[in-house]
Amino acid sequence: MTTISYAEVQKHKTKDSCWVILYGEVWDVTDFLEEHPGGSSIILKLAGQDATTEYDPVHPPGTLEENLPGSKRLGQIDPTTLPEPVKPAKEIGPEADQDIEIPIENLLNLDEIEEAATKKLSKKGWAYYYSAADDLHSKHLNNTAYRQILLRPRVFVDCSRCDLSTTFLGRKLDLPIYVSPAAMARLAHPDGEWGIAQACKKYGAMQIISNNASMTPEQIVKDAGPDQTFGWQLYVQTERKKSEAMLARINKLDAIKFICLTLDAPVPGKREHDERSKNIVEDTDAAIKDAGGSKLKGGGGIGQSLFFGTDPTLTWKETLPWLKKHTSKPIILKGLQAHEDAFIAAQHSDQVKAIILSNHGGRAADTAPPAVHTLLEIRKYCPEVFNNIEVIVDGGIKRGTDVVKALALGAKAVGVGRAALFGLGAGGIEGVERVLEILKAETATAMRLLGVEFVKDLGPRHINTRALERDIYDGPAGLEGFGNVGLWLSRSYNPDLVS
Amino acid sequence: MTTISYAEVQKHKTKDSCWVILYGEVWDVTDFLEEHPGGSSIILKLAGQDATTEYDPVHPPGTLEENLPGSKRLGQIDPTTLPEPVKPAKEIGPEADQDIEIPIENLLNLDEIEEAATKKLSKKGWAYYYSAADDLHSKHLNNTAYRQILLRPRVFVDCSRCDLSTTFLGRKLDLPIYVSPAAMARLAHPDGEWGIAQACKKYGAMQIISNNASMTPEQIVKDAGPDQTFGWQLYVQTERKKSEAMLARINKLDAIKFICLTLDAPVPGKREHDERSKNIVEDTDAAIKDAGGSKLKGGGGIGQSLFFGTDPTLTWKETLPWLKKHTSKPIILKGLQAHEDAFIAAQHSDQVKAIILSNHGGRAADTAPPAVHTLLEIRKYCPEVFNNIEVIVDGGIKRGTDVVKALALGAKAVGVGRAALFGLGAGGIEGVERVLEILKAETATAMRLLGVEFVKDLGPRHINTRALERDIYDGPAGLEGFGNVGLWLSRSYNPDLVS
Amino acid sequence: MTTISYAEVQKHKTKDSCWVILYGEVWDVTDFLEEHPGGSSIILKLAGQDATTEYDPVHPPGTLEENLPGSKRLGQIDPTTLPEPVKPAKEIGPEADQDIEIPIENLLNLDEIEEAATKKLSKKGWAYYYSAADDLHSKHLNNTAYRQILLRPRVFVDCSRCDLSTTFLGRKLDLPIYVSPAAMARLAHPDGEWGIAQACKKYGAMQIISNNASMTPEQIVKDAGPDQTFGWQLYVQTERKKSEAMLARINKLDAIKFICLTLDAPVPGKREHDERSKNIVEDTDAAIKDAGGSKLKGGGGIGQSLFFGTDPTLTWKETLPWLKKHTSKPIILKGLQAHEDAFIAAQHSDQVKAIILSNHGGRAADTAPPAVHTLLEIRKYCPEVFNNIEVIVDGGIKRGTDVVKALALGAKAVGVGRAALFGLGAGGIEGVERVLEILKAETATAMRLLGVEFVKDLGPRHINTRALERDIYDGPAGLEGFGNVGLWLSRSYNPDLVS
Amino acid sequence: MTTISYAEVQKHKTKDSCWVILYGEVWDVTDFLEEHPGGSSIILKLAGQDATTEYDPVHPPGTLEENLPGSKRLGQIDPTTLPEPVKPAKEIGPEADQDIEIPIENLLNLDEIEEAATKKLSKKGWAYYYSAADDLHSKHLNNTAYRQILLRPRVFVDCSRCDLSTTFLGRKLDLPIYVSPAAMARLAHPDGEWGIAQACKKYGAMQIISNNASMTPEQIVKDAGPDQTFGWQLYVQTERKKSEAMLARINKLDAIKFICLTLDAPVPGKREHDERSKNIVEDTDAAIKDAGGSKLKGGGGIGQSLFFGTDPTLTWKETLPWLKKHTSKPIILKGLQAHEDAFIAAQHSDQVKAIILSNHGGRAADTAPPAVHTLLEIRKYCPEVFNNIEVIVDGGIKRGTDVVKALALGAKAVGVGRAALFGLGAGGIEGVERVLEILKAETATAMRLLGVEFVKDLGPRHINTRALERDIYDGPAGLEGFGNVGLWLSRSYNPDLVS
Repeated sequence: MTTISYAEVQKHKTKDSCWVILYGEVWDVTDFLEEHPGGSSIILKLAGQDATTEYDPVHPPGTLEENLPGSKRLGQIDPTTLPEPVKPAKEIGPEADQDIEIPIENLLNLDEIEEAATKKLSKKGWAYYYSAADDLHSKHLNNTAYRQILLRPRVFVDCSRCDLSTTFLGRKLDLPIYVSPAAMARLAHPDGEWGIAQACKKYGAMQIISNNASMTPEQIVKDAGPDQTFGWQLYVQTERKKSEAMLARINKLDAIKFICLTLDAPVPGKREHDERSKNIVEDTDAAIKDAGGSKLKGGGGIGQSLFFGTDPTLTWKETLPWLKKHTSKPIILKGLQAHEDAFIAAQHSDQVKAIILSNHGGRAADTAPPAVHTLLEIRKYCPEVFNNIEVIVDGGIKRGTDVVKALALGAKAVGVGRAALFGLGAGGIEGVERVLEILKAETATAMRLLGVEFVKDLGPRHINTRALERDIYDGPAGLEGFGNVGLWLSRSYNPDLVS
Repeated sequence: MTTISYAEVQKHKTKDSCWVILYGEVWDVTDFLEEHPGGSSIILKLAGQDATTEYDPVHPPGTLEENLPGSKRLGQIDPTTLPEPVKPAKEIGPEADQDIEIPIENLLNLDEIEEAATKKLSKKGWAYYYSAADDLHSKHLNNTAYRQILLRPRVFVDCSRCDLSTTFLGRKLDLPIYVSPAAMARLAHPDGEWGIAQACKKYGAMQIISNNASMTPEQIVKDAGPDQTFGWQLYVQTERKKSEAMLARINKLDAIKFICLTLDAPVPGKREHDERSKNIVEDTDAAIKDAGGSKLKGGGGIGQSLFFGTDPTLTWKETLPWLKKHTSKPIILKGLQAHEDAFIAAQHSDQVKAIILSNHGGRAADTAPPAVHTLLEIRKYCPEVFNNIEVIVDGGIKRGTDVVKALALGAKAVGVGRAALFGLGAGGIEGVERVLEILKAETATAMRLLGVEFVKDLGPRHINTRALERDIYDGPAGLEGFGNVGLWLSRSYNPDLVS
Repeated sequence: MTTISYAEVQKHKTKDSCWVILYGEVWDVTDFLEEHPGGSSIILKLAGQDATTEYDPVHPPGTLEENLPGSKRLGQIDPTTLPEPVKPAKEIGPEADQDIEIPIENLLNLDEIEEAATKKLSKKGWAYYYSAADDLHSKHLNNTAYRQILLRPRVFVDCSRCDLSTTFLGRKLDLPIYVSPAAMARLAHPDGEWGIAQACKKYGAMQIISNNASMTPEQIVKDAGPDQTFGWQLYVQTERKKSEAMLARINKLDAIKFICLTLDAPVPGKREHDERSKNIVEDTDAAIKDAGGSKLKGGGGIGQSLFFGTDPTLTWKETLPWLKKHTSKPIILKGLQAHEDAFIAAQHSDQVKAIILSNHGGRAADTAPPAVHTLLEIRKYCPEVFNNIEVIVDGGIKRGTDVVKALALGAKAVGVGRAALFGLGAGGIEGVERVLEILKAETATAMRLLGVEFVKDLGPRHINTRALERDIYDGPAGLEGFGNVGLWLSRSYNPDLVS
Repeated sequence: MTTISYAEVQKHKTKDSCWVILYGEVWDVTDFLEEHPGGSSIILKLAGQDATTEYDPVHPPGTLEENLPGSKRLGQIDPTTLPEPVKPAKEIGPEADQDIEIPIENLLNLDEIEEAATKKLSKKGWAYYYSAADDLHSKHLNNTAYRQILLRPRVFVDCSRCDLSTTFLGRKLDLPIYVSPAAMARLAHPDGEWGIAQACKKYGAMQIISNNASMTPEQIVKDAGPDQTFGWQLYVQTERKKSEAMLARINKLDAIKFICLTLDAPVPGKREHDERSKNIVEDTDAAIKDAGGSKLKGGGGIGQSLFFGTDPTLTWKETLPWLKKHTSKPIILKGLQAHEDAFIAAQHSDQVKAIILSNHGGRAADTAPPAVHTLLEIRKYCPEVFNNIEVIVDGGIKRGTDVVKALALGAKAVGVGRAALFGLGAGGIEGVERVLEILKAETATAMRLLGVEFVKDLGPRHINTRALERDIYDGPAGLEGFGNVGLWLSRSYNPDLVS
C-alpha cells in the first residue's frame, strides 16, 4: 500500500476533495459526505486530519468497509510526517479526568456510579447518555413515579431464602434485571457492549443489544455463556433491504434469542444536552437533516444522526408479517405507552410474544408517561394482557425497591439502560458488574423485607400505589379501526390481577 | 423652519413652559402635559432635552401629529449647539449589552431565546414584557398546567406525514400557532410589529395586532402576503369616537380579517416589575392616574399608562351591537376565563365567531385560571360550545407538547405573546422566525410521536389530564340574568367531546 | 422630690434590693420582682441602671402607677451623675438601621413593607412580630391556602364602579379590611396603636385594640373620627376583678363598639423566634413561669410573658353570662377553628353577635387550620351559621386577591395583624396608611376583574376552591354535650350558600 | 498477671497471630477473627495496638469474657512502653468538637438538640444514628406524614388541667412518650442506656432496652425507680440457645416488664451513611458478610454487623410458642407495617399483648409506610384491633403536636429513638431529660389548645387526616393462609372508632 505524507492529506479538506486519516490509513470520503447520517460538516471539520478519536467510539468495526469501496482506501499515512504520533485505536476513549481512580466497590448506589462516570466520560459521551427530550420531565418522572409507590413489608415470614430468578420467553434468567438496548457503549469505555455482555454473563442477566451498538453483534456475543440470553433490537430502515440483510446476519447468531422491534421512537425526540455538545455547524449548506429529510438549524446531536434512515411508516398490519418472514426468532415490541397498544399487542399474540413498556428513557416525547403508569393502566382496563403476553419494563430504575415495585405490578423483568452505560464508564466490565451487584443485593433485601421468596409471588398486595392511581388515564379508549372495541369496552376485571 | 439652539430649549423645563426635542425637532408640549396617559412627570423629567430615545419605541408614528397642533412644532434644533449629536431614530433601540452576538440558530428552545433577549433588551422593555400581576402565580401556572398533562404516544402508526395546518374563521393557517396581540414591540427591536409580520408570513402563521402596537396598522401589514391572516385587537375607549375612527381605519385594511375585542383587562392588573422599572415620580401633583381617575402613589409602569382611556363599562347587550355597527369584519372575543362566559358567547354566535381563552398572560388578575383550565371546564359543562364557535387559547406556551395538548382539548390554534417579543428582542425578524421554527418542529415531533397526522385528529384520547381535572371548578354556575340557565343547568354531555 | 445619684442607684442591683431608673425617676421594684409576668431576671439584669429603653415600648402608660405604690418612687435621678444622659421616652424606639430611609410610596406590596420594617425594627420587636408556633407551618399555611384558590374573572360586566364598603354589627365600614388585635405596637414605632388608629380613620377601616396594647385604650381612641369603629380585645384574667375593672373602663369609651373575647390562646403557643430573642436567663430561680405556673427552662419570649394571668378555664356556660353582666357592648368571639364551634356560637346568637375565624396568626397551635379551611368547613356542614351571626376572619392576608377570596366564602371583613405592625415599623402612620392603600387598591382591582361591584355580591361562583376542598375535615362531629347534635347531624345544606 | 511490652504486642498484627490491647490488658483474638460479626478486617486494622477507643462504646461489659476463654487474656500491657499513655475507658467517648459547650436549656426543640449532638458526636456515632435505608424516603416521610395532619383546636373548654399520663399493659406511665429500643447509646455518651434510664425515671417515661445496647441490661436497670417501666427488645438469634440464655437472664430482672420481639428487620436495610463512615476494607478476604452469609463488597456499617446471627426464619406459628416457653413476661411485637399483620396479631391476643407500628426508623425498607399510615389503615379496615390489643407507635416524632396526632388515632404511647440518643449526645442525662421536657411541654400545650384534658379523650375528631387518607392502601388484603379472611373481608366498621 502506498505511503502518504501528512502534508499531502492536508491538501484535501474541502467538499470537492475530502481526505481523513482513520486507524493509520488515509481514506477519500468525498463521495460519502452527502450520505453521512451525521451530516457532512462534522466530517469537513476533521478533513485533512486524523479523525480516529472522533470516529472510533461511535462506529462499529466494518462501517468503513460497508460504506466505501476499497478504492477509497488510498494508502497508509507516513507516521514520521505527523505533527504528533497517530494514537492507536485501543488507546482512544473517554477524554476527561482519567486520573481520578475511584475504587468501584466504594460506590454504594447507582447515583454514585453515575457521578463517578460523569467525571470520567468525554463531554460528548456524557451528553449523549444523560440527555432526554425537551425539559427532561419524563426522564425525571420515570424515577419519581417509583418513589410515589410505598412498600408494604410483612412480618413473621421466613425470609431466609430469596430467589431472584425469573423467566422470559420460556428462558430462565437469574436476575429480574436486564440491560436495555442502549447505543454507543464505546463512548463510555473501549470494552463497549462486549463488556456489558461479560458482566451480564457473571450475573445471569439478559442483555438486549442496541441496533446502534458501537460493536458488531458478532463481537458482542462472541464470549457468551451457554445459558446467556441476548435479544437484538431492530430499528426498521426505510431501505428494507438493509434491515433484511441485518436480520439474516442476526438469524445466524444462536446466542440471540429474540428480536426486539422498537416502536417508541419512529422520529427522534429533541435532546438538547446532546445537541449542545455537538460543534456548531458553520456551513449551513451542510446542515444535518431530520428524519423527514428537512435541514435542521442548530444541528442535532448523536441521537439525531442515529435516526437517519429509520422507517416511520411501520404498522401492525404491514410490519409484523414482513418481520416474521425474515426471522424465525420470537418477536417482542418495545416502547408501548398506552394500555390500548398493550391490548392490541395481546390480540397479536401469535406474532408478538412480549412487550416492553418504555418511554425510551424519556428521550422521545417529553411528558410521555413512565412505564409504571402504563402498568397501572393495563391492570385497570385490560389485565388479561398479562395472561396473553409477557410484559417487561424499563426507565427510571435506581434502586432495588424500584425493581420490586415493577415486578409486583406484573412485569417479568426490569431493564436498565443508562445505569449499565454509566457503570461501564465508571469502571468497564467491573463497573457494570457493580451495577448488577448493587441492584441484585437491593432487590433481594427489598423482597426479604416484604416477606417474599420468589419473584412470581410478588403482587399488588405488597405495594401501595394509591398516590399514582389518582393520575392514571381515565378518558375514552383509542381503539378506532381495531375491531375489538366491544370486548375491550366491557373493561372486564380479573379480580386476582387488578389492584 | 426656524432653527433653535439647545440653550434656548433648556430654558423650558417646567410645567408652565415645557419643550422637548424629538427626531431633531423642538416641540412645545406644555398644553399636553395634563393629557399624557403616562402622566406629566415622565415628560417633565425630559423637559429641555432630547427625548427621542425614550419616546420612540413606545409611540407609533403619527402620535405627535394626532395629539398636537402643527403650531407646537417650534422648529429644528441647531445640531451644533447640542452637548452631543442627536441620534437619528433608526439607531435608537434596546440599550443593554448590544455587543453580545448570539447566533440565533444556537438557541434551542424558547427559554434560551428569552434568556438571550433578556441580555439585549433595555431594562424597561424587559420589565414590561416579563411582568405579570402581583406574585406571578397565574403566569407561572399558565406554563405548569401544561406540564401536568401527560401525552399518550401510540405505536405502529405511520407517521411519515405530519400536517400542521389548521383553520380559523374559514381561513387556512399553515401553523396552529399564532402571535397574540402584544404591545410595544419596538421596545424589543426597531423592526417592531412589522418584523413579527414578516416572520409570520414566512411560516404561514396568524398575527393579531395589538391595540397598543408601537407601529401603525398600515405599517404592520404593508408587506403582507396574499394569504396572510391578521386580526386587530380593540380596547374600546371611553371616548367611543376615537374607537370608531380607528375601526373605520381598520375596515379599510384588507389584510386584517377580524376584530379581536379584548375583555380580560377592563382595568389594569398590578405589574410590579413594570412599575419598578419606571423612574420615581417626585412631583406628586403629577402622579399617574388609574383607570378610575384616582392618583396612584408609587406610579405605575408602561402597562398602567396604556390603559388610560379604556372603557370599563362594556356589556354583552350594549357593546356587541355597537361594534357590529362599526365594522363588517368578523368579531372574536378575547379573555374568557369561565365556562359560563364561553357558554354565553356561544349563545351569541350570530355576533361572535370565535373566543380566545386567556388570562392576559397572567397580567390581569393574579391566580386567574390558565386557559387549559377553562378548556377543561367547557369540556365538562358545555362541550357544545366547540360546535357553535371556534376556540383558541394563549398563555404559557413554551414547547410543542404544550401546543399539542391545547389542540387535543379542542383549541383550533394556540397563541404566543411574550415568546414572539423575546424572539424579536433576541434577533429581530430572524429571532421571531426562530421562535416559530422551534415551535413548529417541536409540535410536529409531538404529533408524530402521538401517531397523529392532522391537527383535527388530535383528541382527548391523546392526553391524560387527570391531574388537572381534579382542580376544575365544580361550584354553582354563575349565569344570573342570562336566560339560558335551564338549558345550561342540564349540563348535557356530548360523549364524543367530553373527556 | 429627692434627687438621687447614679452611684446610689448602682448599689441596689440584687433580689434583696432592686432599683431601676425609669423616665428619669428612681423606682424600688424589689417587691414587684416575683410578680413580674416577664419573670424577675429580666428586671435584675437592668437593676441599678436606666431601664427606660427596654421598659417603655412594652408597657402602656400607667403600668408603674397601677402596680406599685407611690412610696416606691424614690426620687429623681441626678442627671449630672449619669454615665450618659438619660434619653427621654419619646426618643426611644426601634434600634436598628435607622438611617435607611425608604420612601413609603415605593413599597409596592406587603412583602416589601415587611422587608423595610425588618430593617428598621429592633431584633426583639421583629422576633415578637414575626414569630409563630413551633415550625411556622400554620403561619405559612395561612397564606398558601389563599394561593390554592383560583379566581374566576367574568367578562362583559360594567366594572366602572367598585364599592368596597361592608357592614359589621350594623355599622358601615369603608373597607372590608380591618386591623386585628396585635400587641405591643410601640415596639415598631412610638406612634403605636394610636398611629394605627389614625391610619384607620383615613381609610374608614375598623381596628380591634389588643388587650396587650402598649398604649392605654383612652390614648388610642382619643382622636377617633365620628364614624370610626373600634373593638376591644379581652383576655379574661384569672383575677376576674382585674378584667371587670378594665371592662368598666372600656364601657366608658364610646368609640369602642364591641368586646372581642379571644379564645384561641388559652395557653401560649411556643414561639421560638420570640424566645430566642430574649436574653438568657442565668438565674434559674428567677425563671419565667408558664400559664400553669410551672417554671420554664429556656425562658420564653414576650409572647409568653403576656399570657401571665390569663384564665384558661373559660366555658360557654360560665363565661358568656359573666361577660354580659359586665358590659352592654356587643360581644364577639375570636379564634374559632372548627365548624362545630361556629355552630355552637350560632346557637348562642343572643349573646354572641359575630365570630372571628382565626388561628391566632399561626402563633397558638402549629398545624392548626387556616381560617379559610374553617370557612369551607362551615359552608360544608352548617352554612346556616352565616345567617345567624356575622363571620370575619384573619391570618395570612398578603394581597387584595386574598381579601376577595375570604369575602367570596362568606366573611364580612378580613383582618391584618402583622401587616399593620410592619407598616407601622416601616413608616409610622404613613406606613400603616400605605398598607391599607395597597390592600384597598388590590382588592378593588380584583373585584373589578371579577366583574363585581359590591362586596355583598361576591360568592362561591367567583372562586374555585377545589384544591382546598379536598383537604377539608370530613370526620365525626365533636358536639358532645351541646344538645343540638340531632339537628346538626342532618347537615342540611342551604343551596344558595353552599359551594 | 504477666506484663507485656508494646513492642511484643506490635509483633502480632496478622490473621495468623492477632493481639490487641483493651482496657490495659493484652488479648489474643486470633481465633475470634472469623467469628466477629463486624468482620475480621476491622480488628486487623487495630491489631498490635490499643483498640479500647474503638471497642468500648459498641460493646457492653462482659462481651470479651463471653466470647473468649480466659486463656486469651495474655497479660497487662507495660504502660511505660506505650507510645502514649493508655486512656482509661471512662475518658473514651465522642471525638469531635468537645469544646463547644451549649447550655442544654437553650436548645428549644428536637432539631436543635440533634444539631448540638451532631457537633459533639464522633463521625461514626453520628452516621450510625442518622443513617436510614437507601435514600431516606421513609425516614423523611415518618416526619412529614405528621405535618400533613391538621389539628382541630376547640374553644371555650376549661384547659387549666392537663393530664399526660397513659397506661400500657396495665401499668401507668406519666408520659405518653417512651424511648424506643435504639442501639449503641455509648457511642453518644459514656452514660449510655443507663443515662437514658435515669432521665426516664425523672419523667415517668417507659424505656425499651435495645437488644444491641452498649451496656448490660443489669447495668441499665440498676437504679430503676419503683414504678419505672422497662421493656427488653429481642432479636431472635439463629443459635436459639443464645437467645434462651439471654431471656433467662432477663426473666430475673423485675424492672423489665415485657419482651419486645422485633420483626421489622429480619435482614438489615441498606444504610449508606453508616457504611460510608466505616473504613475501607482493603482485605477482600476479610469482607463483612450479610445476613445470608454472602460477602459484601463495600463493607457495611455498624448496623450491618449488628445483624450478624439474627434469625430470619421467624413465623407466627413457630416463634410465639417458643418465646412463650422461655418467658412469662408479656410479649409485644415491634415493626408491624400493614393492617393485615395488626389484624393477625389481634387474633393472637392470648400470646401478644401489644404491637408497635414501626418502620424501624426508616432503617429497614426504604419507602416503607410511616406508622401513621398503618394507624389509618387499621382504623379503615379493622378498627377492632384497638379493642383487642394495645397499639403504640414510633418514628418521626419531632414535636408535641406529632405525639398528640398519633394518640388521637389510637396509639397508647409514642416512641422516640434518635431523639433520645441525640439528647444523650448533646448533654448526657441532662440532654435526654431536655428531650423529654420539651416533648412533654409541647404535648401538654397541644392538648390544652385542643381542649383535651386526658390522653384517653383524644380522638379522630381532634385532627384532620384527609390529606393522608387519600394515600392509604386500598388494594386487596394479603391474608393467605390465616383463616380469618371471611371475617376480615367484611371490613366491618366500628363507627365509634373509625374516622
